[in-house]
Amino acid sequence: MNYDAVTELALSRGFYFPSCEIYADAQAGFWEYGPLGVALKNRYVELWRRELVRRDGMLEIDGSQIMSRSVFVASGHLESFNDPVVRCTKCSSVHRADRLVGEVLNTIVPERMADGELGALILKHGIRCPKCGGELGSVSRFNMMFKVSVGADGSDAYLRPETCQSIFVDFARLFKIMRCKLPVAIAQVGKSFRNEIAPRQSLMRLREFYQAEIEVFCNPRRLDAIDRFDEVRDVMLRVQDGDTLHEVSAEQAIRKGIVPNRLVAYYLALLSEFYSKTGIDMSRSRFRRLAEDEKAFYATVAYDFEVHTSLGWVELVACNYRSDHDLKGHMLLSKENMEVMDVEDGNSKVLPHVFELSMGIERSIYCILEHSLQEDRENDRLVLRLRPYLAPVQVGILPIVKKDDVEAKALEVFRMLRKEFDVFYDDSGSIGRRYRRLDEIGTPYAITIDRQTLEDGTVTIRERDSMNQVRVRIESLRDELAGRLRPP
Amino acid sequence: MNYDAVTELALSRGFYFPSCEIYADAQAGFWEYGPLGVALKNRYVELWRRELVRRDGMLEIDGSQIMSRSVFVASGHLESFNDPVVRCTKCSSVHRADRLVGEVLNTIVPERMADGELGALILKHGIRCPKCGGELGSVSRFNMMFKVSVGADGSDAYLRPETCQSIFVDFARLFKIMRCKLPVAIAQVGKSFRNEIAPRQSLMRLREFYQAEIEVFCNPRRLDAIDRFDEVRDVMLRVQDGDTLHEVSAEQAIRKGIVPNRLVAYYLALLSEFYSKTGIDMSRSRFRRLAEDEKAFYATVAYDFEVHTSLGWVELVACNYRSDHDLKGHMLLSKENMEVMDVEDGNSKVLPHVFELSMGIERSIYCILEHSLQEDRENDRLVLRLRPYLAPVQVGILPIVKKDDVEAKALEVFRMLRKEFDVFYDDSGSIGRRYRRLDEIGTPYAITIDRQTLEDGTVTIRERDSMNQVRVRIESLRDELAGRLRPP
Repeated sequence: MNYDAVTELALSRGFYFPSCEIYADAQAGFWEYGPLGVALKNRYVELWRRELVRRDGMLEIDGSQIMSRSVFVASGHLESFNDPVVRCTKCSSVHRADRLVGEVLNTIVPERMADGELGALILKHGIRCPKCGGELGSVSRFNMMFKVSVGADGSDAYLRPETCQSIFVDFARLFKIMRCKLPVAIAQVGKSFRNEIAPRQSLMRLREFYQAEIEVFCNPRRLDAIDRFDEVRDVMLRVQDGDTLHEVSAEQAIRKGIVPNRLVAYYLALLSEFYSKTGIDMSRSRFRRLAEDEKAFYATVAYDFEVHTSLGWVELVACNYRSDHDLKGHMLLSKENMEVMDVEDGNSKVLPHVFELSMGIERSIYCILEHSLQEDRENDRLVLRLRPYLAPVQVGILPIVKKDDVEAKALEVFRMLRKEFDVFYDDSGSIGRRYRRLDEIGTPYAITIDRQTLEDGTVTIRERDSMNQVRVRIESLRDELAGRLRPP
Repeated sequence: MNYDAVTELALSRGFYFPSCEIYADAQAGFWEYGPLGVALKNRYVELWRRELVRRDGMLEIDGSQIMSRSVFVASGHLESFNDPVVRCTKCSSVHRADRLVGEVLNTIVPERMADGELGALILKHGIRCPKCGGELGSVSRFNMMFKVSVGADGSDAYLRPETCQSIFVDFARLFKIMRCKLPVAIAQVGKSFRNEIAPRQSLMRLREFYQAEIEVFCNPRRLDAIDRFDEVRDVMLRVQDGDTLHEVSAEQAIRKGIVPNRLVAYYLALLSEFYSKTGIDMSRSRFRRLAEDEKAFYATVAYDFEVHTSLGWVELVACNYRSDHDLKGHMLLSKENMEVMDVEDGNSKVLPHVFELSMGIERSIYCILEHSLQEDRENDRLVLRLRPYLAPVQVGILPIVKKDDVEAKALEVFRMLRKEFDVFYDDSGSIGRRYRRLDEIGTPYAITIDRQTLEDGTVTIRERDSMNQVRVRIESLRDELAGRLRPP
């Protein structure tokens, strides 16, 4: 299924929709999760916690979104986190210079192309305003951070453009109070904000979005000394390097030099195992090794975890080896010592390096939806084949006939389950129509209550994908459902 | 235990700590959740979902934090969400006028006192700058919203000062696509932002904070027609009205006119049942009915759910009957029709009224910590008696001796449990010290692995509060723990 079908489903069934849509001054790039979206997102984050945070023993924090100016002086965002823009001299509309050039010339413009070069291309090819055809001004820089003014005196502060800065700023305290040893990973889920010039394609490029970021602090002299690597040695990785797609185990990836060290390979493998449990079709995924001119300004080695969709390849996770860029920056400006002891390295002092897994949650949610949505022609239904443990509505409760005693029994079952599970009670329309409505939003199990329920205390559980039905006793329903809804 | 003891625990063990603390330009009123705080907050929110959202069949959304200017024109925040301030004519420091007057005169200044009146009191009593003793200027208004500028053209937008505005703005779409019937509650957990003049007492008054808000949309003609009331008829409520504390059942509260209708009584009862499961000592709580001059500008009837702590009474939830203030405002400005059909009321068109439960999450977390932290002198320990289902670290795993085979077995148990539970492995220090460390952060269960484990495959579970120990088989550990960690 494609982008339009997913968007149609999202809007009509309440996965997500535009923010402030009733107002003319609604801004592009802001979307809301509706009831089904909230539940899907929460379960996705819960799986991330299970398969990455808890599995690896990471620390998780939740920091402020508004951060002081110094943070972004030190991180380099104030100076470098900007996009090249051109303003039309006629209609005053503003455009991303690199994207405009790329679209008109039908080419990929490297992220780091200098303003002068972009300006020269605009001149050379006579590129004009896509809105009014007017002449474009010169290329300048637009900082993508949102500024706010704090307190009565109006101190400058910023909405964080990435969650990880809280992790770096808090690192020294966390390492000490949590009695950490290198390597240690610190994770965070939360909102980040980027004042994009041209937000687009609903969840694909937002101005306000959720990230799940993991910063692995490590001793750069000991990038191969990670015992936990044994757990993932045989996990298969798909790594795209230039024109070649390597399908190799984590161990082979290192032996063949496709991944530089065990630490990086270990975390790529964890990430791969996580995504394989989200229902994303892994045969349409890859870790793409970035070329020099594609990497973010702080990265020395970088992979993008990408998934193929109807929109082409979509980047879900940026995996960057940020070296000591961040900790050094904060240490220099704040004078706070960020060095720590590495007991495994002769108790030497180390300024840790950082390997980062920076995940976009909305894009991940989008890909899960697109890969899960299927038209089942044989059974004349649209079915969202979400993994049961990710489904927003887990159980439908359907009295099969409109009879007082059957409905009373159905409500009893509903009340028994409603606190523990996300349950939807539906008594309107034919049973076939009610199944279709549940199939379309990915509900894995429907419980029907019928005449026989009143006689022998059993109900049927109908399974979404196979459409098979089994009868179980009401007393064992809770355990039956809990077992089926547990991640593997 | 008091505020200082809780703060000391929070800082030293990683529940929460100030944001950007390594920088001189760190702003007051911004705090971060450390690893233990994140887990406690998440479990708290999960309990809120269970006992309020799922129990009542509410819809939950997650909206943008940056919202368009029109939203706050319609809501009245642009005009009315401001604090009275005075600036010192000598040192230029800015103070909340009402609080300053209140503190100097040792009295409670009503929230709605006019600027002129405040100015007159300052003059009459010769109140001067608390910082430098200088003369104060006249009283003016300071809007508490944070403004941001969106897009290349810099459209005004604001960080929401309360989460509920997303719910109102989205109401018409949600009611339609989710096939709602009145009354229906829509809930949201998320960040809100207020540019407080004087943030204080760590989590008590923040500039960036989590709210869990519930907006109940209802037909004002049918406030007593709510079937679900039967479920809570006997729930006891503590309602403070003027000088009188009423301890009555929900049903009596209505009969005696202490609460105006069944809808309000039902939701106060749900809230009360929820908090009784958080471990807050309900005998130190009350719903305080607000006097006319204390209520927010949009409320017609209002109760504050308050809890008594070492800081005095703390407001955790504002329960406001907002009437049609919000929907009407948005309908007038946006021209979007917010009226809906009420099938139970002869299919008449209704502009719903709203009863709101607006919960501060940080304050709730603080009260839970203060009410749970105890000095157990008899056993010479500090113990955080959190309900097991709220504890951040659920299980400690402690090899009782430093022996290779015992440690290997302990690690095996650790690996078996780590994905499902929040588990902490600790092999350093005496077993007594390790128990103390777990007690202090509220870990309800400690599993010890010893020589006998190697022989018969059993471990001991030590219970935090009673300090009792039971032996169980490793195979049944997972079920044993899951059962003990399930909310009642």
